[in-house]
Amino acid sequence: MQYVAPLRDMQFVMHELLDSQAHYQRLPAYQELDNQTVNSYLQAAADFAETVLSPLNSVGDKEGCRFVDGQVFTPTGFKQAYQSYCELGFTALAASPTYGGLGLPSSLAKAIDEMTGAANWAFSMYPGLSHGAIATIEHHGTQAQKDTYLQHLNTGAWSGTMCLTESQAGSDLGIIKTRATPNADGSYAITGQKIFISAGEHDLTENIIHIVLARLPDAPAGTKGISLFIVPKFLVNDDGSLGERNAVSCGSIEHKMGIKASATCVLNFDGATGYLIGPENRGLNCMFTFMNVARIGTAIQGLAASELAFQGAIRYAKDRTAMRAMTGVKDTDKAADRIIHHPAVREMVLTTKAFAEGGRALIYFLSQYVDMIEAGQGIDGIDVKFADEMLSLLTPIAKAFLTETGFESANHGVQVYGGHGYISEWGMEQNVRDTRIACLYEGTTEIQAIDLLVRKVLGSKGQLLANFTTLIDEFCAKYADDDNLQQFITPLQALVKTWLNLTQSLAVAAASNADDVGAAAVDYLYYSGYVTLAYLWARQAAVAYQKLAAFGDGEQSLQGDFGFYDAKIKTAQFYFGRILPRTQTHVARIKAGSATVMAMDIEQFIY
Amino acid sequence: MQYVAPLRDMQFVMHELLDSQAHYQRLPAYQELDNQTVNSYLQAAADFAETVLSPLNSVGDKEGCRFVDGQVFTPTGFKQAYQSYCELGFTALAASPTYGGLGLPSSLAKAIDEMTGAANWAFSMYPGLSHGAIATIEHHGTQAQKDTYLQHLNTGAWSGTMCLTESQAGSDLGIIKTRATPNADGSYAITGQKIFISAGEHDLTENIIHIVLARLPDAPAGTKGISLFIVPKFLVNDDGSLGERNAVSCGSIEHKMGIKASATCVLNFDGATGYLIGPENRGLNCMFTFMNVARIGTAIQGLAASELAFQGAIRYAKDRTAMRAMTGVKDTDKAADRIIHHPAVREMVLTTKAFAEGGRALIYFLSQYVDMIEAGQGIDGIDVKFADEMLSLLTPIAKAFLTETGFESANHGVQVYGGHGYISEWGMEQNVRDTRIACLYEGTTEIQAIDLLVRKVLGSKGQLLANFTTLIDEFCAKYADDDNLQQFITPLQALVKTWLNLTQSLAVAAASNADDVGAAAVDYLYYSGYVTLAYLWARQAAVAYQKLAAFGDGEQSLQGDFGFYDAKIKTAQFYFGRILPRTQTHVARIKAGSATVMAMDIEQFIY
Repeated sequence: MQYVAPLRDMQFVMHELLDSQAHYQRLPAYQELDNQTVNSYLQAAADFAETVLSPLNSVGDKEGCRFVDGQVFTPTGFKQAYQSYCELGFTALAASPTYGGLGLPSSLAKAIDEMTGAANWAFSMYPGLSHGAIATIEHHGTQAQKDTYLQHLNTGAWSGTMCLTESQAGSDLGIIKTRATPNADGSYAITGQKIFISAGEHDLTENIIHIVLARLPDAPAGTKGISLFIVPKFLVNDDGSLGERNAVSCGSIEHKMGIKASATCVLNFDGATGYLIGPENRGLNCMFTFMNVARIGTAIQGLAASELAFQGAIRYAKDRTAMRAMTGVKDTDKAADRIIHHPAVREMVLTTKAFAEGGRALIYFLSQYVDMIEAGQGIDGIDVKFADEMLSLLTPIAKAFLTETGFESANHGVQVYGGHGYISEWGMEQNVRDTRIACLYEGTTEIQAIDLLVRKVLGSKGQLLANFTTLIDEFCAKYADDDNLQQFITPLQALVKTWLNLTQSLAVAAASNADDVGAAAVDYLYYSGYVTLAYLWARQAAVAYQKLAAFGDGEQSLQGDFGFYDAKIKTAQFYFGRILPRTQTHVARIKAGSATVMAMDIEQFIY
Repeated sequence: MQYVAPLRDMQFVMHELLDSQAHYQRLPAYQELDNQTVNSYLQAAADFAETVLSPLNSVGDKEGCRFVDGQVFTPTGFKQAYQSYCELGFTALAASPTYGGLGLPSSLAKAIDEMTGAANWAFSMYPGLSHGAIATIEHHGTQAQKDTYLQHLNTGAWSGTMCLTESQAGSDLGIIKTRATPNADGSYAITGQKIFISAGEHDLTENIIHIVLARLPDAPAGTKGISLFIVPKFLVNDDGSLGERNAVSCGSIEHKMGIKASATCVLNFDGATGYLIGPENRGLNCMFTFMNVARIGTAIQGLAASELAFQGAIRYAKDRTAMRAMTGVKDTDKAADRIIHHPAVREMVLTTKAFAEGGRALIYFLSQYVDMIEAGQGIDGIDVKFADEMLSLLTPIAKAFLTETGFESANHGVQVYGGHGYISEWGMEQNVRDTRIACLYEGTTEIQAIDLLVRKVLGSKGQLLANFTTLIDEFCAKYADDDNLQQFITPLQALVKTWLNLTQSLAVAAASNADDVGAAAVDYLYYSGYVTLAYLWARQAAVAYQKLAAFGDGEQSLQGDFGFYDAKIKTAQFYFGRILPRTQTHVARIKAGSATVMAMDIEQFIY
C-alpha cells in the first residue's frame, strides 16, 4: 500500500503540542532550527519515503534477501534507494558534524525515521542498525577508533551491526560463549557464532563494522565478564583504505515471518580480528548507551505500524460497501453503505488512529528529553538528570506499549479489509508480519515490563514515576478551571491515583513474594502505557480546543484545519471513552496476584 | 513443529466431562458406540495426524500451491496423504451410510477433525470444504442429485466447494452479481466471477462439485433473489461417468498470509452448466444449513491454534534457559533457569492451555447438540428445538471467541520463543499466519457478534440466552453445597447476572439507538465467550475434584492421572483468577455506548 507521510499531524505534535521551535532555541546547538527549516527537512523525508521507499516495501517482502555462497543480496531497488538515502544525509541526521553528521537534534531525526520506517521498515533497518555501532564508538571508542570508523559509518559508506545474541542466549546475555583471545599486536581473536544479526551481511556498503559481545579469557561468569569488540568485515589499513577480509562470515540468513528484505544473519567468527572497545568486562554497561536508542527505534516501528494500519483501514472503510447501517440507509446512491458507517469498523479505525497519533506524541515528547541529554543541557528548570530519568522511565513504556498496540493496530488493519486483508496485494497482512518482530527484538515486552517495574519504578523507590506523575498533576492543575478539559482531567487524575496505589502495593508485594511482581509486570506496563497516552491525548485536546476558538463562523469546514482540530478532540474522547476501560482489566489482574500463575508443577505441563 | 494428539484431554472431555457413552446410547443411530470404539477411532486419527499430516504442515507452508495454466498443484505429499485420508474414511465420518458415509455422530467427527486440522489445517481444508457441498446436497438436493454426487463426495473421490464471495461482495451476499440464465434442457448457464474459493481447483480429486450462489433473471434485488446451483468441474454423464469439462476455470490463486497449501482460487464461470438446487431465490436460506457447520469447523481451527501454541510453548519453556527466577535459583544444574519458572512465561503458557482445553470442552459440548439435531431426537428432556436453539446461540460464540483466542494463543506461542518465534523453522509463526484467517472467513468476528447479539439474543427476546443461563444456574445449584466448587460458583453466578443485565440494557438501547447495539456487539461476544468457557471450566473442575477423591496416599503422582486432574483444577483457577478479569473491560466498554465511536464526520478521516 502507498504510504502517505502524515505531515499535518507530525507538525501538530512538533510545533503546536511540543513547541519545538522554542525547545530548539533554548539548546544552543540547535538554535538555528526554526519551524520552517524543520518543515523543509520533513518535506524532503516525506517525498523520499513516499516515492522511493514505499513502492519498494512490497517488492522487498516478495523477493526477500538472497543468500548465495556467503553473500547476501538485497531486493531489487534497495541498493539505489540506499544510495539516495545516504546522499540525502539521512544516515547521519543526528550524528556529530565532526565526523560528517548533520548535527540535527534527535527529536527531528526521529520524525524522519518515522517516515522512512513506516514506508519501508525492512529497508530502514540497514541504516538503522548503524546507529548502535555509531553510538557505541562515539561514547566508548578511542580517538583512533573514532577517526577510523565514524566518518564512513555516518556517511553510510559503511554500515554497522550489534552482535549480541547467540543461539542459547537472547534476553540473557550473561550466558554468551563467544571468546576473545589476545593477539600479540594488542588486537583479539574473536571466535564464536552470533545469530539474529540484522544487516550482518548485505550488498549495500563496502564494509560492515560489527560490534561484538565476547568473553575475555578468565572473564568472570555472567554479565560481569562481557567485553565489547569492534570487528570489521574488511580490516582497515592505517591510511583508511580497506585491507584484507576478516575471518567473519555469514553462514546463512533466517527465513522469517516478515521484514523479509532485512537480512537476519548467522555470523561465524573464526578467530576474526577484533579491537577492544571500552573497558574490559564492562561491555554490558557500555551497551546501555545503545539500548535506549535501539528501544526507541523499535518503539517507532510500533507507531509506524499503527499509522500504516490507520491509513490502509480508513481508505478501505471509506470505499468498501457492505450491508446497510443499523440506523438506516446512509449512502443512498449505493447498493450498500460504506463500511465506515458500521460501529465495529469505526471502532477499529479509530483505535488505529488513537494509537498512531498518541504514539507519535509519545515518541516526540520523549525525544525532546533525548535532545537535552545529547546537548548536555536542560531547559526551563529541567536538568539533564531529570531528562535522563524521564527517558529511563518512558523508554520501556514506549518500546513495549507502542509495539504491542502497533501489532494490535496492524491486525485491525487486516480485519477492516475482511478476507481481502489476508491477501498479500493489499499490504495489510505484511504490516502484521513485519510488525510482529517489534514485540520481540530489543527486549521482549516481558523484558521491558520487568525493566519498567523492577528496575525503573521500584528500583528508584518510585522517584522516576513521581517525576512523571508530577508533570501530569501540573497539567491537570493548569486546566483545573477549564470546562472543556474536565472530561479528560477527572479520569486522568483518577488513573494517576490508581497508578501510584498500584505501585505502592507492588512495592509491598516485592518484599514478600517476588513472583507477584513478576506476574504483575506486563499488566503494569500496559497500565502505564494507557495512562501515558491518556496524558498526551488530554494535552492534544487542550491544544485543539485552544486552536478551535480562533475559528470564526464560516471558517468551520470539517475538511480543513478546523476539522483537524475537531478530530483531535473527538479522537481524545474516543480514547478516553473506549480505550481507557482496558485499564480496568489490568488493575484487576495486578490485584489478582501470582498464586494461580505459579501453582502448577512443571511436570504437570505435558507434551 | 511436531503435533501430538492430546488424547488424554480429548477423552477427559468426551468421556468424563460429557459422558459420551451415555449420550450415544440414548441416540439409536449411535447406540453401539461405546468408549472403547470411540477411543479406537481417536487413536487411528491421532496416528494419522501425527505421522502423516503434521510433517507435511511446514512442507505445505514452504511450497505453497503452484498455479500453472489454470491448473493447481498441491504441495509435495498432499496427494498421497489425501489418498490415505480417504481410505481411512475420514472424508465421510458423519455422512449417511446410504451414500457411503460411516454414519458416526458429529461429536466424534469433530474430535477427529480437531486432530487432522491441528496437524495440518491447510490440508484439512480440501476435504473440509466438501462438507458444505455435501450438507447442501443432502438437505436440498433432489433424489437424482443425491444419487449423482453424494457417494463420490463422501468417499473423497470428488471434492466440493462453496462459491459465495465476489470481489465486491463478501459479508454482504445480497450484492452478488453472478447470473444464472435458463437453458432449454432445464439446466442454467452460470456466468460471473467468484473469489476466495478454497479448494476451488486442485489435483487431489478427479472432479470438483461447486455450489454456486447466483441470480436468476428478474430475481428480486438483495438477499431474496439468490439461488443455489450445482456446477461440476466435469459434467457427469447419466451412467455416472465423467463427461465434458464445464466452463468453469481457475483464473489465479491468491498469495496470502498463511494456509499457503490451501488453494484460494478465483473461479470464472463462463456460461458454465449449473443445476438449480433448492427453491428459486431461496439460496441464502438453504445456505444456513451449511453455515453453522462451516462456522463450527472454523471454531475448531481456533481451538487447534491454541493447542498447537500450547504444545510448542510448553516444550520450549521447559527447555530454554534465561535468567534466574525472581524468587531465587530453580535449576541449580544450569547456568540459568528454565523460562517456565518466570511468571510472564507461565502466564502465556497457561493462557494457551486454558483456551485450548476450554475451547475443546466448548466444541465437544456443542457437538452433542448437533448429534441430537442430526438424529432428530432429544435426550433427557432436551428436545430438538432446544438443541437447535443452543446451537444457534453457541455457534457465533464458538466461531468468534475461539478463533480470536486461538490467534491470541498463537501469538503467545511466538512470544514464548522470543526471537526464535519469529523464525520459520520452529513453526510458531506459521501458526499465527495460518490462524489469522479464522477471524475473517465464514463471517468475521464482527459479523458473528451481530449475529449473536442482534439475531440470536435480542432476536429471541432473550430466550436463547435464558436457555443457556438456566443450564448454568442448574450447575451452580447442583454444587451449591460443595466447598471445593464455591471458588467457581460464586463468580460464575455474578457473571451470569451481569450477562443478563447487559442484555436487558442493550434491549432497551436497541429501541433508541441501534448504534449502541452495534458498538457493543463485539464486547458482548467476548463477554459471552468468557462466561461460556468459565462455565465449562467450572464443570471440568467439578469432575476433577470428584476424580481426585478416589486417589489414595501413594497414588498421587503429579505425572499420572492424579497430576492430570490436579492440573485441571489449577487451570480452572488460573482461568478464573487471571483470564476472567478481562470481562471487566468488556462490561465497561458496553456501558460506554457508541457516542465517541460515531462522533467523527467521515470527511475528518483523512488519507
